[in-house]
Amino acid sequence: MCTNRGVAYIQPGVVEVQEIAYPELALGSRKCEHGVILKIVSTNICGSDQHMVRGRTTAPAGLILGHEITGLVVEAGRDVEFIQVGDLVSVPFNIACGRCRNCKVGQTGICLNVNPARPGAAYGYVDMGGWVGGQAEYVMVPYADFNLLKFPDSDQAMAKIRDLTLLSDIFPTGFHGAVTAGVGPGSIVYVAGAGPVGLACAASCHLLGAAVVIVGDLIPERLEQARTFGCETVDLRSETPLADQIAAIVGVPEVDCAVDCVGFEARGHGHDAVTERPATVLNAVMEVTRAGGGIGIPGLYVTGDPGASDEAAKVGSLSIRIGLGWAKSHSFMTGQCPVMKYHRQLMNAILYDKIQIAKAVNVEVIRLDDAVRGYQDFDRGAAKKFVIDPHGLIAA
Amino acid sequence: MCTNRGVAYIQPGVVEVQEIAYPELALGSRKCEHGVILKIVSTNICGSDQHMVRGRTTAPAGLILGHEITGLVVEAGRDVEFIQVGDLVSVPFNIACGRCRNCKVGQTGICLNVNPARPGAAYGYVDMGGWVGGQAEYVMVPYADFNLLKFPDSDQAMAKIRDLTLLSDIFPTGFHGAVTAGVGPGSIVYVAGAGPVGLACAASCHLLGAAVVIVGDLIPERLEQARTFGCETVDLRSETPLADQIAAIVGVPEVDCAVDCVGFEARGHGHDAVTERPATVLNAVMEVTRAGGGIGIPGLYVTGDPGASDEAAKVGSLSIRIGLGWAKSHSFMTGQCPVMKYHRQLMNAILYDKIQIAKAVNVEVIRLDDAVRGYQDFDRGAAKKFVIDPHGLIAA
Amino acid sequence: MCTNRGVAYIQPGVVEVQEIAYPELALGSRKCEHGVILKIVSTNICGSDQHMVRGRTTAPAGLILGHEITGLVVEAGRDVEFIQVGDLVSVPFNIACGRCRNCKVGQTGICLNVNPARPGAAYGYVDMGGWVGGQAEYVMVPYADFNLLKFPDSDQAMAKIRDLTLLSDIFPTGFHGAVTAGVGPGSIVYVAGAGPVGLACAASCHLLGAAVVIVGDLIPERLEQARTFGCETVDLRSETPLADQIAAIVGVPEVDCAVDCVGFEARGHGHDAVTERPATVLNAVMEVTRAGGGIGIPGLYVTGDPGASDEAAKVGSLSIRIGLGWAKSHSFMTGQCPVMKYHRQLMNAILYDKIQIAKAVNVEVIRLDDAVRGYQDFDRGAAKKFVIDPHGLIAA
Amino acid sequence: MCTNRGVAYIQPGVVEVQEIAYPELALGSRKCEHGVILKIVSTNICGSDQHMVRGRTTAPAGLILGHEITGLVVEAGRDVEFIQVGDLVSVPFNIACGRCRNCKVGQTGICLNVNPARPGAAYGYVDMGGWVGGQAEYVMVPYADFNLLKFPDSDQAMAKIRDLTLLSDIFPTGFHGAVTAGVGPGSIVYVAGAGPVGLACAASCHLLGAAVVIVGDLIPERLEQARTFGCETVDLRSETPLADQIAAIVGVPEVDCAVDCVGFEARGHGHDAVTERPATVLNAVMEVTRAGGGIGIPGLYVTGDPGASDEAAKVGSLSIRIGLGWAKSHSFMTGQCPVMKYHRQLMNAILYDKIQIAKAVNVEVIRLDDAVRGYQDFDRGAAKKFVIDPHGLIAA
Repeated sequence: MCTNRGVAYIQPGVVEVQEIAYPELALGSRKCEHGVILKIVSTNICGSDQHMVRGRTTAPAGLILGHEITGLVVEAGRDVEFIQVGDLVSVPFNIACGRCRNCKVGQTGICLNVNPARPGAAYGYVDMGGWVGGQAEYVMVPYADFNLLKFPDSDQAMAKIRDLTLLSDIFPTGFHGAVTAGVGPGSIVYVAGAGPVGLACAASCHLLGAAVVIVGDLIPERLEQARTFGCETVDLRSETPLADQIAAIVGVPEVDCAVDCVGFEARGHGHDAVTERPATVLNAVMEVTRAGGGIGIPGLYVTGDPGASDEAAKVGSLSIRIGLGWAKSHSFMTGQCPVMKYHRQLMNAILYDKIQIAKAVNVEVIRLDDAVRGYQDFDRGAAKKFVIDPHGLIAA
Repeated sequence: MCTNRGVAYIQPGVVEVQEIAYPELALGSRKCEHGVILKIVSTNICGSDQHMVRGRTTAPAGLILGHEITGLVVEAGRDVEFIQVGDLVSVPFNIACGRCRNCKVGQTGICLNVNPARPGAAYGYVDMGGWVGGQAEYVMVPYADFNLLKFPDSDQAMAKIRDLTLLSDIFPTGFHGAVTAGVGPGSIVYVAGAGPVGLACAASCHLLGAAVVIVGDLIPERLEQARTFGCETVDLRSETPLADQIAAIVGVPEVDCAVDCVGFEARGHGHDAVTERPATVLNAVMEVTRAGGGIGIPGLYVTGDPGASDEAAKVGSLSIRIGLGWAKSHSFMTGQCPVMKYHRQLMNAILYDKIQIAKAVNVEVIRLDDAVRGYQDFDRGAAKKFVIDPHGLIAA
Repeated sequence: MCTNRGVAYIQPGVVEVQEIAYPELALGSRKCEHGVILKIVSTNICGSDQHMVRGRTTAPAGLILGHEITGLVVEAGRDVEFIQVGDLVSVPFNIACGRCRNCKVGQTGICLNVNPARPGAAYGYVDMGGWVGGQAEYVMVPYADFNLLKFPDSDQAMAKIRDLTLLSDIFPTGFHGAVTAGVGPGSIVYVAGAGPVGLACAASCHLLGAAVVIVGDLIPERLEQARTFGCETVDLRSETPLADQIAAIVGVPEVDCAVDCVGFEARGHGHDAVTERPATVLNAVMEVTRAGGGIGIPGLYVTGDPGASDEAAKVGSLSIRIGLGWAKSHSFMTGQCPVMKYHRQLMNAILYDKIQIAKAVNVEVIRLDDAVRGYQDFDRGAAKKFVIDPHGLIAA
Repeated sequence: MCTNRGVAYIQPGVVEVQEIAYPELALGSRKCEHGVILKIVSTNICGSDQHMVRGRTTAPAGLILGHEITGLVVEAGRDVEFIQVGDLVSVPFNIACGRCRNCKVGQTGICLNVNPARPGAAYGYVDMGGWVGGQAEYVMVPYADFNLLKFPDSDQAMAKIRDLTLLSDIFPTGFHGAVTAGVGPGSIVYVAGAGPVGLACAASCHLLGAAVVIVGDLIPERLEQARTFGCETVDLRSETPLADQIAAIVGVPEVDCAVDCVGFEARGHGHDAVTERPATVLNAVMEVTRAGGGIGIPGLYVTGDPGASDEAAKVGSLSIRIGLGWAKSHSFMTGQCPVMKYHRQLMNAILYDKIQIAKAVNVEVIRLDDAVRGYQDFDRGAAKKFVIDPHGLIAA
């Protein structure tokens, strides 16, 4: 009676919208009384989904994708006390129990109870605990009281759903990169990467009061998008060194802090831009960040990369110029963003019009049936963030 | 040959522009080789000057007022290495040696070496070390390498001098209040007081990413000024309780954090607004700040107040509802702003157009000869910040 | 069949051990599936219980006392996943849901869901949510997965139970006072009060690396106890001013930071020591704390004190010399300790013999039937911490 | 008339005690009025000196070594105000101006004004500004008011000079490693390296309240030394993996945080211990540090290493398993310790007998003429910290 459809990973380069099982309040054979079923209002395609779809991981065929989920509660388990059927909620991409040592101190990105293999879990992601993804019509969310952020007013929220949908991952992730880099009022920042996370980070830097936000990328359309909301840009295809391009903007070849929003699939700069150079961004940010500056690294680095071009990179080992960072007393902050640490405050920033995050990342709402095209366009470097609207609930 | 003129405190209610001595690089009989002489470009009248002028302190007749100073270096001592004649600089109102335990950790507001009576000093202020004030044509600044903030480009700086002049005190002071209260992206804040510090604080809250900034005052013109840059306001003359007015704005009778930008000369709220009630603001902010919230207190509370209406207040003792704060786990951060902690970053925020602080506090530039009128208008509650231009260097 | 006995407050000065109901996994008429029933291994008498027993609160007759609980899990609700029957656990005195905004950021002392009257709840305490106390044989603990700290090895834990029993309140509370005051390696600290919290705070200061820990009290036996573990002491009955006594110890009349472990039932110093002076400690710590120092206030200040000697104090309003604190840029950190923030780390410090906290506070284990005597001795100022052993499980 | 002798680097493996120039209060041709001349009371041989002496740097022949200096002021420039002739002082190894942006925020390790080549300077060190070293009888210290820590009582200080001499570098450096790793009360810590910095770090961990401090090294005598003050140890020559050795101590194969006190001259573990493996320690600490843990890196990593075994390492680029750290949300804190941030508090910890740091690192006092032997013994892995007593002022 209850049907469901979702986006499945089939093989490198191929995803497909399939009929899938309607979610149950169950974990294996055990009832999941702390969970809820959501009717999904919006669910976004993420750059980290692309790692799987490009075949850079060991994701199994049939994996249902999607970890950026916003939805309506349609069923709630017995242990759910503070979330009700009918609530419109944002789901942090990190699944967290709220009861372990790490969750208790806000490190929900490395929850100890939701992934037998290692700390940290996510919906619809390889090696992240086997949870069913949410690029679908319905999904189950465990530990609902702890995980979910309820929007205070559903109508108000639906009017800003293009922005609020970004609270499940990229807005907090970009913000976390900025915060961990030490961005604050008056900062001069370099953001490496102008994909959705990089753009969200750049917008977050502005929200945090940064004086100058310089965004670098290889794709002109993405740089153009960054300029639409007040960023300076550097074109990494240019042979002009990054430091010189920065000097042309702020007068000195250095920034106060930097954020790596690219991760391990980085390419080289200049004429080397056709080659994958996984440590390029890390080495570049050390070069241009002033002594004493902070470096935030929300960009993903993996423990294993079967598609890497050299043996070291296949086990996640990169040639990093650590001596340079050390000489400059740099700090390096890594890891998945613990979304819950930020989503309530960022929701307020959206609801009270302090930030136009959907415009910054150029949200495009698509139907579930257009998900395949969304993946393809995104992979080709479209300067867009694709938001799937599986039930046609989002007004044009 | 070298002449000088400055604003002197004469008696309660009376200030006067006088001929005064041209400053020397000397401290008593000793040469002050670490100091510089500044030709003052702008020097602001501050609310804390009013405490003296109203006769609420033991300030002696003849005290030269003024601690908000921006100027050009016209002479430098032998030990000054990094500041040159010709530099355009902002002077933090706190005088600091840069060599004591407190200065070394950034607590320049309580320097141990510049005031024999107690930690902390300022130009032109009673009990603050006896330093000559800077509402004048020229002034001497000690420990110049440490204290001064040099503007990177003088022409660019002169073009924004109405904003940059606020770096010497009220912009950092308001910002410090916001920071110590814990304001950040998405915060809902109550700022008590819409005088220049309150307005600077409100603008700082916006710079820090606050979602809602609610400003309260008894003077309608000041509230009107707050509304010009996106603040919500509450009129404290109203009989509607503060909490209810806040609830009308944000839906709940509470804010995340609050800043007391009023201090000990507070009046009551509602029908009690005609009476001085020195603990009113502290008690009000405890009432409306949510449990766990922070309270920043840049507003001045004094150790002695000869003009107070009761004996306890005369020694700075106020009847504070500390039990309420304790029950809500409030934190209270007091003291003078250590300007140096913030001025460089806030300068960048001005230079890169992240904030329009002069507009926010409604700067009006006046001639030195108009200082007396400036004091009078400010005392009557004008919604303005008076900036004295002693040499006619600021373009109309 | 299941019986229970507990300590009831009867009237000012009178407590009584009574037969009471065996706890159920229920909250009103609703089943409490997230709760557990504990067989209590140890439960301590706290100074804050004395406020009720002395008649300084509106505690109703029949209230079952006790919020410092350690016990064995004998029954667990269906939604409890990570705590098992048989686990030996420490119960933080703050009851917390683990699902509200405050709990998510570690502010479990002001949980929003466990007390309809205001944020924050505790077992067996007036105005703290109506939860049944744990100076008893059995007690119910809600949100068990979130609240409880499981000891890794029960036998090892029973061997150190005199120390571990202090994790439910006074060790973390004293530690919190020290941490919020800014105590760290090399600090010179003044701890006001040598009751159990004061002694726990002093021991915590040593754990944090403080160079000198000076403890002040009016009771010689308590000061003697403080000296047993390396503290310096000042006798507040002396007419020698506190600052002079401190100078005699460290050469200057100031400390780096101070902790108020007394609260609102403070008495005066010197000849004034017979009179209740609720603001004495706050004013004294401002006087002796250096400019820039921090002040931690774990000592309880109440919103209402029907037994106070003046009208202002009856509503929790005290005459505080805030001007002095402001001049010294003091910070004031108030509120109940969020035990969960500290208990795991402090457990490790106990288990690995880094601290002898039971010796520091002079634990005396008594039978449940001796609770009445324990209350009386404690009220008379015994330099002891009474730990009730309701089942005779603690070896002599 | 004024003579001086110092330890000069001659060539790889060779140092020599030479007659050298008596220091002047001058910087090039300019008088250095902010400087002082010190008669050196103690000056320590540091592991980082060994990098030069082993020929792993471009240090020129004739460089006078020594950056760990304690001495008596025998002459002071005219601009020195707060340090007097006759003061006994500790000299932070980082030379800092106290007037630049970095110094003002306490980042004295990367002062912008004392080294034309790059931020940060030190006495007697290659590429660190060309300052004359202090393994000598006399040395000049610039910016004396800012840099020097005066001991409050010279006689008391001479009685503890073996401990206080360590304030110039290795005690703060080890402490900084611990602090930046997040060590606090109850922490379980792994310290890589049991040389003097490693031992100082381990002792610092104890001072910070750590529950378990596990020290790893390849040299049994150094591990034996670590055990003398309560550390657990792991022998890295063993074929048992580090994680297993840790599990044997604390029951799990993980620690809360880790400190790399080795740096780029690391060797492999187990049978690989004969080979230099510059990234071994970084990769090992990522492996054994729990998710969410901090990693402090006081061990030196260089921007250029002419003696490295591979091309990448020659430019300071190492093969680091960053993907593993990222998956565990590790933070990495690098750079030279800003000694001034810690030395005053650590001095108090010494003066008030909170720590026996000289015993922990096994100080051996030697004459200046024995410096050559000291270098040789240290290079062979002696579990000692050699302190040179150039004037025979230290009692046996």
